[in-house]
Formats: sequence, C-alpha cells, structure tokens
Amino acid sequence: MNKTEKVKNLIIDKPLKLDCGKTIVNFPLAYETYGQLNEKRDNAILAFHALTGDQFAAEINPITKKEGWWSNALGPGKAIDTNKYFVICANVIGGCMGSYGPSNINPENSKPFGTNFPVITINDMVNAQYHLLEFFKIDKLFSVVGGSMGGMQVLQFVSNFPNKSRTAIPIACTASHSAQNIALNELGRQSIMADHNWSNGFYEENKKLPDKGLAVARMAAHITYLSKKGLQEKFGRKLQERDDLKFSFDADFQIESYLRYQGSVFVDRFDANSYLYITRAMDYFDLTKQFNGNLSKAFEKSETKFFIISFTSDWLYPTSENRDIVIALNAIGKDVGFAEITSDKGHDSFLLDVPDFLNAIKNFLNTSYNKKI
Amino acid sequence: MNKTEKVKNLIIDKPLKLDCGKTIVNFPLAYETYGQLNEKRDNAILAFHALTGDQFAAEINPITKKEGWWSNALGPGKAIDTNKYFVICANVIGGCMGSYGPSNINPENSKPFGTNFPVITINDMVNAQYHLLEFFKIDKLFSVVGGSMGGMQVLQFVSNFPNKSRTAIPIACTASHSAQNIALNELGRQSIMADHNWSNGFYEENKKLPDKGLAVARMAAHITYLSKKGLQEKFGRKLQERDDLKFSFDADFQIESYLRYQGSVFVDRFDANSYLYITRAMDYFDLTKQFNGNLSKAFEKSETKFFIISFTSDWLYPTSENRDIVIALNAIGKDVGFAEITSDKGHDSFLLDVPDFLNAIKNFLNTSYNKKI
Repeated sequence: MNKTEKVKNLIIDKPLKLDCGKTIVNFPLAYETYGQLNEKRDNAILAFHALTGDQFAAEINPITKKEGWWSNALGPGKAIDTNKYFVICANVIGGCMGSYGPSNINPENSKPFGTNFPVITINDMVNAQYHLLEFFKIDKLFSVVGGSMGGMQVLQFVSNFPNKSRTAIPIACTASHSAQNIALNELGRQSIMADHNWSNGFYEENKKLPDKGLAVARMAAHITYLSKKGLQEKFGRKLQERDDLKFSFDADFQIESYLRYQGSVFVDRFDANSYLYITRAMDYFDLTKQFNGNLSKAFEKSETKFFIISFTSDWLYPTSENRDIVIALNAIGKDVGFAEITSDKGHDSFLLDVPDFLNAIKNFLNTSYNKKI
Repeated sequence: MNKTEKVKNLIIDKPLKLDCGKTIVNFPLAYETYGQLNEKRDNAILAFHALTGDQFAAEINPITKKEGWWSNALGPGKAIDTNKYFVICANVIGGCMGSYGPSNINPENSKPFGTNFPVITINDMVNAQYHLLEFFKIDKLFSVVGGSMGGMQVLQFVSNFPNKSRTAIPIACTASHSAQNIALNELGRQSIMADHNWSNGFYEENKKLPDKGLAVARMAAHITYLSKKGLQEKFGRKLQERDDLKFSFDADFQIESYLRYQGSVFVDRFDANSYLYITRAMDYFDLTKQFNGNLSKAFEKSETKFFIISFTSDWLYPTSENRDIVIALNAIGKDVGFAEITSDKGHDSFLLDVPDFLNAIKNFLNTSYNKKI
C-alpha cells in the first residue's frame, strides 16, 4: 500500500539523541488531528497509541478503511469530545504508519534499515512527539492520554516535561515492564524471528515477508488482551460452522478461527520489524529505574493532575501495577485520581465500549477543563 | 536418538476403536514401572503424564539423561513412595517416547504417519492404557494420579472404569478445556505449522525438522506454566550476564534467555507432530459434554475415593475449574477431598518441590492404603 498520500508528516529537523546513543535528524513523524485548536490554544490533547496502534485514532483509517483504534472513546460528542478538544495523535517512531521506522530507507546503502534501525525507547518516542507542541504552537497541552504502551508514554511525557500538560490519563499500564510482559513480548519476537522469511530483518529486499511469524505473534498477544472469563463467555467451546468435532487440525472451535483471523488481518497492516522494535521499547521501559528506584521522583516537578485507570480483568497490566503509580504520586502529595473499572473484557477494555470507563474519562476531562475557565 | 533399546513396550493386540471412528490394533504402548507389585496385587498406582511428559516419571530418564518429570513426588520414601507402591506410567498414544504416534511408520506407504496419524482423544489414551491392568494382572488399582493433562486422564479413567481404582487424584486440571486453554494450544500449533520445515507434518521425509516453530510453542506454553508473581520474583528485570541494556534483539533479560533455553532443549526431546496431536486431545477434552452437560453423571457408577488438588497461582487450570469437579462429586454424595495449595509457582507447582502439596498426596495415599488393611 502507498501510504504517503494519506499520511501527514512532520519532518523533525532538530537532532534527537536516542537512548541507545545514536542521534537522528530530519526524520518524519506521521500524525493526525481531530477537532479544532481554539484561539487560546489551551484545548489540545496528545493521545498516545499502543503497540499496534497508529495515528488514526478516530474516524475511518484511510489505509485500513476500518474505524480508528479509539473510535469508541474519541470523536464528536464522545468521551474525548472533538467538538471541544483538539486531539493530536502521532505514529511512534519505530512504527510503520509513516513515522521513522525500520522500513524507512537507510541512506548509507539506499535499502530499508531493517534491523540496522536503532533500537528505540519509550523515552525516544515521547521526545520525538514533543516537537508536535512546537509545530502547533501549543505552550501547554490540556491533557496527555493513552492506554497500554500509550499509558507508558503518558508517564514518560509528564516526567520529561513536567509543566507541559495540565492533566494526564495513563490507562491500563505500568511504570516498569514486568518479567511476564517481557516474556510475552519475547515470545512474539521469537515467533517473527523463527519465520524463514524474516532473514535477520532484511526481508524487504527479498520481497517475501515473515507473515506467518507475525501472525503467530499477533495471536499470542491477542490472547493476552482478553480475560479468561471474557473468552469463555464469548467463545467457550462453541464450534465454527460445524455440528461436531472434525478430528483434524482445522479450526474446529470458534476461538481458533477468531485467532487465525486476527493473525491474518494484522499482517496486512503491520510490519514485522516494527513489531520487534516497539515490543523492545516496551520491555526496556522502567521509569522507576530511570529515577534510581524511586518512582515518585519521576513526578516530583510535575504540576499535572493525574487520573489513573485500570480494569479488573486486565491480567497484562493488572490493577496492582497501576496502583503502584498512584502510590508513588500520593507519596509526594500530587493530585491523583484513580478508578478501577469493573470489566470482563480484559486489557482490551480501554479500546472497547465500556461505559463506566468512557464516562470516567469524559467527566474527568470536562470537569478539569471547566475548572480552569 | 535410538529409543528402542531403552523403552519397554506393550504391544496391544486387541483392536481399539478411537473416538475419530478409526480402529487401531497391534500398536505399541511404551511404559515404565517403579517399585514392586505386591502379592495381593493391590498396591499399583497408574500415573498419567502431562502434555510434554513421558513414561519416565522418576529416576534418570535414559533418553534425556535428566531426572524424570515427577522425581519430586515419585520415588523411594517420597510422596508416592515406590518402597510401598508399584507405579506404572505409560507414554500416551500420540506421544513420541515409544507409544504409537505420528512418527511411527504408516504401513500403507512405509513412511512416518505424520499428519495421517488419526486424531486421538484423552478417552483414547486412557482406553489404551487400560490394557496395562490386564498385562500386569491387576484387578483393581490402588490409585490413578496425574496433573494437568494427567489429571484429565484420571477423570476419564474413573469415568470409563468406575470400579478399577480405589482412589483417584486429579491435580491442577479441568473437566472441560476452556476457551483460553484452547487458544493457548492453538497458538502452539500455529507456531509449529508456521515453520517452513513443518511441510504439512511430513517433515521426517525431508530430514529438516520444524524446530524453530516447536521452540516457540514451548516458550508460549512455558509462560503459562508460571505465575506472574513467580516470574517477577525469579526473574524480574534482571539482566543476563551484562551490566546494562545492549539496545539489540539479543537476550538482554534473564527471562528471555531462560525462555530461549527452554525452547532449545525441548526440541531435542519432543516431536512437533506429537505436540499437535496431544494439544488437540486436550482441547477436545470435555467430560461434561460426554455426559450431556451433567458432569456428576461421569462419576455416578464410581466407587472411587477422590482427592482433588489445585494451586492458588495456577491461572491455566485455576482453582475454580478444579472446584467444579468437587461440586459435581458432592452433588451425588461421592467421597471427595479437596485441597487448594498455596503456591506462587503457578501451574508448574505439581511438578515442583512444594512441600504442602507433596505432604497432601503422601498423607492421602498412606491413610487410604492403610484403611483397607
């Protein structure tokens, strides 16, 4: 697919020193906006996407022709109301929807970077996106918001730029990627790397993509996004268009068919190397370690009002890990609200139509915005 | 490896009609025994292995040269005391340690069966192993015992042969494979099938094995065998023989290195097609459905004394699913004990040195055995 026509790009012409030590410059950051920036330029929200998201948070994604990943939460009259707020969403660096990533051309050899692309971090992603504030001449955002890896970016953003957002909503995330989460990401990476076509990351030269490995990685991840109870209620042991077991390795069960479908559609829109780079960034994320084991210090200079949200059935980033952030903020007397939303839909709850969750965001944003005026 | 010299085989010469409709005959069932059958022939225990287990439950496995998979529980003076009891353990059909499975030769074309091997079920496995009772001239076992898929076999055995075992110990299992468990097994299968070398299951002809896919399947499974807390305590974010992150896709974290190791050693001892067949059997397991939705009916004719064991941190076969079996037995007034053992070690607890668990088994067996005498 030719993305270039449909993607808005900001070319960042200031050097960005990455955590790995390399410096990048004149690189593209693909972004999208929803709503209008008001005259005071005080209604802007920066929304950060999760592992497989992109800048097309709302409306119809022009590349996939499907609803944007946060259409349940973001749009006119919705929880993040684009009639009121100006929402900016950028594709993370390392991604594959127009921002600088492993499928970009390496000027050294005029071939795609592949695994010669530098390993990036959540910190690098956030530092790149900070340039959007300058570009839109926004002195202070109204809010930074995101779920999962998006929530990690929220935390890193507030830590890096303590006075650049009035409010912050980290959702279903963690301040430090756990061993289980590293393990699950490593599983996805090993699955991609096991694909014969991966070719150490230089598959674009061969024109054969590691689609099978990427599909398996997606299936693995998808299982972790749903709760055991949610899966049981939705699929249970229901059979897929058949009356009885077939005694074969076809997809007998609906859950098998569902996972295979999720894998197959994912490879049409996502790049295998980007999957490696972005999961690596998540695994490297440890805000607590950045502040020598004291997470409170990450927020010491912040004047941001926090609202932290977790979901009861999220076993990937469970309430306990979200609560650790609340505790760190409470320890230094910062303004922090916390809601654990009851949902059987697992980690995916932040993307779905979960009314309690959407109302919580809507009320927090509107109350916070009105208080200032 | 040439297994034939080290494996005891019972050739089952009576036809066995499989659930898929096919009948097999004159097929090998590989088994091992520990301890001595007493004169009364009343001290025999049939131990069933889990997905990747085999007949070498105790002592040194002559093929892998490592301790048998249940060495913590089984041996002289141990919880399942081979000074007292005669323990039989067989490799399940569909397996790869000598019992009839997909790597056996298909007489129709003198090549390994591969995926032409019939899809087997837990019921088929148990019906095959029943022949061990005739072979050893055991009228009634003292106990049937097993964890995970071994526990499913315990349940199926008691249901099929209600008066053939005095006691039964299903551990960390379920009466009906859940959607999440089917999903996780399907992930493993898709990982194997995604391997270029799998060749629709006929890889033995090509001499190139789908080792990468099988290793990824093992990694996925391994994550599910451990608890989030256990992983965090054992590995956390510890680095592997380095002081800082390498900004590469090498195994930076110990958990990554551990998973890669688990994958690599597994492929030396296990057959990819057997992994497909055995996971399929687990997914097909639904004892409740066999009795039209009433699990109690599976045990109606049984005179067996049950002891059901679950582990607090087992999220693969959680206490709730084990308790469902207790409830079904209680509903018809059967003799059933139940212990939920506190352990952070996840599903793997049944294989590990968990003293409360081992003591529970030891006491149950000894008390039950002595009562009779």
